[in-house]
Amino acid sequence: MEIITPTLLVDKDQVYRNINKIAEKAKRNNVRLRPHFKTHQSAEIGNWFKEFGIQAITVSSIRMAECFANEGWKDITIAFPVNTLEITKINDLAKKINLNVIVETKETVQFLEDNLKTKVKVWINIDVGYHRDGIQWDDFNEIMEVAKKIEDSSLLSFIGILTHAGHSYKSRTKEEILQTHLDSISRMKEIQQLLEKNNFADVEISVGDTPTASVAEDFIEVDEIRPGNFVFYDLKQEQIGSCKEEEIAIRFACPVVAKYDKRREVLIDGGAIHFSKDYIINSEGKMIFGYISEHNNDKWGKRVKDSYVKSISQEHGTVKLNVEYFNKIQVGDTLIIIPVHACLATNIMGKLRLITGEEIDALCR
Amino acid sequence: MEIITPTLLVDKDQVYRNINKIAEKAKRNNVRLRPHFKTHQSAEIGNWFKEFGIQAITVSSIRMAECFANEGWKDITIAFPVNTLEITKINDLAKKINLNVIVETKETVQFLEDNLKTKVKVWINIDVGYHRDGIQWDDFNEIMEVAKKIEDSSLLSFIGILTHAGHSYKSRTKEEILQTHLDSISRMKEIQQLLEKNNFADVEISVGDTPTASVAEDFIEVDEIRPGNFVFYDLKQEQIGSCKEEEIAIRFACPVVAKYDKRREVLIDGGAIHFSKDYIINSEGKMIFGYISEHNNDKWGKRVKDSYVKSISQEHGTVKLNVEYFNKIQVGDTLIIIPVHACLATNIMGKLRLITGEEIDALCR
Repeated sequence: MEIITPTLLVDKDQVYRNINKIAEKAKRNNVRLRPHFKTHQSAEIGNWFKEFGIQAITVSSIRMAECFANEGWKDITIAFPVNTLEITKINDLAKKINLNVIVETKETVQFLEDNLKTKVKVWINIDVGYHRDGIQWDDFNEIMEVAKKIEDSSLLSFIGILTHAGHSYKSRTKEEILQTHLDSISRMKEIQQLLEKNNFADVEISVGDTPTASVAEDFIEVDEIRPGNFVFYDLKQEQIGSCKEEEIAIRFACPVVAKYDKRREVLIDGGAIHFSKDYIINSEGKMIFGYISEHNNDKWGKRVKDSYVKSISQEHGTVKLNVEYFNKIQVGDTLIIIPVHACLATNIMGKLRLITGEEIDALCR
Repeated sequence: MEIITPTLLVDKDQVYRNINKIAEKAKRNNVRLRPHFKTHQSAEIGNWFKEFGIQAITVSSIRMAECFANEGWKDITIAFPVNTLEITKINDLAKKINLNVIVETKETVQFLEDNLKTKVKVWINIDVGYHRDGIQWDDFNEIMEVAKKIEDSSLLSFIGILTHAGHSYKSRTKEEILQTHLDSISRMKEIQQLLEKNNFADVEISVGDTPTASVAEDFIEVDEIRPGNFVFYDLKQEQIGSCKEEEIAIRFACPVVAKYDKRREVLIDGGAIHFSKDYIINSEGKMIFGYISEHNNDKWGKRVKDSYVKSISQEHGTVKLNVEYFNKIQVGDTLIIIPVHACLATNIMGKLRLITGEEIDALCR
């Protein structure tokens, strides 16, 4: 394949294996898989999911929802607290598809009741420990008040409680991920029981995040899972223990433009406007913006030892290589790089190229 | 102005003041100002520069060069070491405009001599201490060999030596920036004298970076300056001392979607896919992803005390506010945020909105 500029490559077979693993797990647990499409943002990759029977999806913005609705998706959850300023767009979309939204304040429920033109299904957003968004899980009063307000509304139909246990990303072992999962589920169950004791019937539980969906085997207590990143995985996921390196389905291909013998570094065409500025910290405390893959033509191999993207600026990437690899690499060659954060890289690039050559858009943003 | 989604706003009057300051300084020093357009990447903002007599520009990729060439720019330097894999595009562009490239290896010079179809002007890229790209400033042998190879070539015409003293970004005071500037200039002068002693005539010096261009007053030793960020400035520039807060010409407007009383935080629609993941470290060692501006309709005020974007994920931003501001802000309001890194934010957004309302593209990437 001809590479002349930083290119985000995707291995379709590996994506299928990644989807299959989670789809099988969902089936075994009799739980609905509603994958989060913010990772790939691609109409084409969305279609791959259809082959696994997926009909319901998650997105994180109204714009993304509009895009996938235009691609024929009929059941979409926007897993971002309703932005009331976008009410016109919400009304337009709710006319066309089965739209599910999340709320966490009585004010937003009231606003929707006053301004919606169609019935919309609604989840209450719960904070089980990530402390980013949602009503704190043990604030039962608030949860109950919001639930009652939804129940009293004529246009909102209450589905249940939803959470994203994003603190699982701070894990460094499978055991830590599992513990976060168990805590999160038990908190959600507690709320569910409380609501059911207060005459709310069939309160569903929806949980998200790739780490717990990848590592945990038991999801029988929940109704829906919404992982997204697993479609590609990345170095962050590998570091916290939710995937193996060979499960990462994307790589960057970047031209080498200069070599520096004294510091055993090469300069690549590839920087923050391709990878994003996200990083992982390695075991020595160093910031890592990507690892290097061995490759043989279009076949990716193992990680190159002691080699990594050491720093990036807007377009420049500085790559440290081991002696052997450094001696092999020439200006004009292409380095294959395992990205740190698949979602941000895909969002910035706006397109991917299959390792078989075809280009696909990732523009549902 | 109606804001319903994260929007990057630009104050045209402030941009004009920022350009004017640097343009005047260049005039005083009798030095060519060749602004770097990677910060705004906008055809429209490019036109604003024309009003200051700017005819020559800098970009950081062949794609950006093609875009601005299509907008009528006839003299463009690509300040990124030649990516030999892009030779077809280089040849196409060199036919149309006065194209200047930078090189740092004999191999690349040989490659260009073998593959160019038109004459191209070339700078030798020098590393004066940033250690990202360029031949190390004291490696006189290498510099001389590359220069000779250029001189021997029939298609390359040698302009001089070019550097980007990016280590100025590590400064925390104006004095540190000035010191970097003086060191950098004295290293470049040393190379220039050496080359002239070896019969290279009229060796020009080109220096870049916004911090030194903003802080230093004396550029009489150089022929060209290539700052870019100064068109907007940002929190990084303010932190290192190259601008004042009121000189920052852009802000994000982001809807507030939730409030958290216990932690005195609000959730905004605005995250890494808008701001980028770049951050500054404040005096208490905290990561800051943006500060909050007071505002009165479309007029921006001073920074809100003890208030900042504390963390971001793909679309979510968590903002810490002081008591008074927290009590004032309601769900459905809009926060005005001073961005950390103008270049990356503009690149991701791909568009800006003037505070007078019109939208302008920033798609020359």
